[in-house]
Amino acid sequence: MRLIRFTRAGGGAETGLLFGDKIVPLASVLPDAPATALAVIAEWETIAPHLDGIADAPGLSLSEVRLLAPVEAPQKMPAIGLNYADHIEEAKHLGVTIPTEQVWFCKQPNSLAGPFDGIELPRVSDQLDYEVELVAVIGKRGRHISREDAPKHVFGFTVGNDVSVRDWQRKTAQWMLGKSFDTHGPIGPVIVTSDEIGDPHRLAIRSWVNGELRQDSNLKHLVFDVWDQIAELSQAMTLEPGDLIFTGTPGGVGAGFNPPRFLKPGDVVRCEIEEIGAIENIVVAEA
Amino acid sequence: MRLIRFTRAGGGAETGLLFGDKIVPLASVLPDAPATALAVIAEWETIAPHLDGIADAPGLSLSEVRLLAPVEAPQKMPAIGLNYADHIEEAKHLGVTIPTEQVWFCKQPNSLAGPFDGIELPRVSDQLDYEVELVAVIGKRGRHISREDAPKHVFGFTVGNDVSVRDWQRKTAQWMLGKSFDTHGPIGPVIVTSDEIGDPHRLAIRSWVNGELRQDSNLKHLVFDVWDQIAELSQAMTLEPGDLIFTGTPGGVGAGFNPPRFLKPGDVVRCEIEEIGAIENIVVAEA
Repeated sequence: MRLIRFTRAGGGAETGLLFGDKIVPLASVLPDAPATALAVIAEWETIAPHLDGIADAPGLSLSEVRLLAPVEAPQKMPAIGLNYADHIEEAKHLGVTIPTEQVWFCKQPNSLAGPFDGIELPRVSDQLDYEVELVAVIGKRGRHISREDAPKHVFGFTVGNDVSVRDWQRKTAQWMLGKSFDTHGPIGPVIVTSDEIGDPHRLAIRSWVNGELRQDSNLKHLVFDVWDQIAELSQAMTLEPGDLIFTGTPGGVGAGFNPPRFLKPGDVVRCEIEEIGAIENIVVAEA
Repeated sequence: MRLIRFTRAGGGAETGLLFGDKIVPLASVLPDAPATALAVIAEWETIAPHLDGIADAPGLSLSEVRLLAPVEAPQKMPAIGLNYADHIEEAKHLGVTIPTEQVWFCKQPNSLAGPFDGIELPRVSDQLDYEVELVAVIGKRGRHISREDAPKHVFGFTVGNDVSVRDWQRKTAQWMLGKSFDTHGPIGPVIVTSDEIGDPHRLAIRSWVNGELRQDSNLKHLVFDVWDQIAELSQAMTLEPGDLIFTGTPGGVGAGFNPPRFLKPGDVVRCEIEEIGAIENIVVAEA
């Protein structure tokens, strides 16, 4: 299944399932379904058995709606740094080496944005950069989740852009602020449920700026894979349904060029992961 | 006013106002008041004018309730590091010096806990430490808030313990994981509204472990004061009602002793700020 959130002209946010270009609003087939995607994800084991035949239900066309971020207000958006060998290589002039421990920071939920929303070039920086990432969406609450059990705790996968403001990321040793500007966490366009993806560590991951290929790798190159990430995080914190785990970015970010190639207003960033889809965000100057 | 959240035996969470030892449940005087403290904070300007005479309304005794964290699910809990000169001094053996930039990390909201809840000694560490902090509670949404306007965006102030797992904090350069264990963000017991506190940069701040004074300073010793903190954070992120800003801890933490004095099960940590009150948390081994 492919879960989305969307609005129709003049309407509020709805959840739905996507079949090709057809959207079936969840409320049209399950009037008792919860109103938020977070609740749908949390109650998915109860909801899924009622969805037989939903692909044949009447629906809307994608062109009739605006797609939103497929979850609305995650409790957490932890993000791992330096998790592809080629991205580490391009950062080695900063003294970076392959980590022996997982490097966790976070994006704050104010950064969440829709799959085709604008990314703001902040007033306070001109070092705006992109990072395509696989985002794992937690489905089942848990603490001390073993690597073996980790797949059972994932509702599905989506595409994210861990947009980064490099000078703010680096003005102290702590990266959080530079990773958490408003609009700097676009995700989507869909969450593909785990049963369809299975093991994601074989999917191609790519980004383009204005049509020029910038990042081009594969999830098989993760230093710490998604299951290891869930095991590590959950030793410290209870993972909750809807939590978004940003799993790392491959080489090719703007800061890795010499001179750096940061984003400017009007630039279009496309982030794509095989079997999931693509988000595309235009850079706009902050008002 | 002093805002609290509490439960009575067998009941759900309620919001109330505290007058001495008397609790007036908000719903008992304002049946239309929102159910959550986050909504009360967001709508405070509308609610406050209806509270004349509330101190004389019938109420409950503090002894009849269990106090909860005075907000339930903040979007963000940003926290500043190295923000009292004496705390920097005690960390200098780690190469720490007075920062010229504000050092921002975050606690994750899963860490939130009540003012008298247990703090868990994690299964995965024996380096559990305490940090008493003034916590500023945002009342009014805003971005690019000037230092001059910052006081208008603060709903009030509470006491927090930025509980820290030192080995997890330091196993990479990013502190987030070691600051975000479940139960490691107790706050309370009340939020004192800004109009009662005025300028907090004159309040005594102290912590004790098992009755032994460990931290003993004053908010006037902040390197970056609360207004500067709000101005800096809001250049990056929209601050939302209920966001909890942990404003730094003075010297005297367990890691600053030689040898370090980390917390053990049964230890009682008391964190107190003048004019607000005290939280007291016992250390319990994680189940």
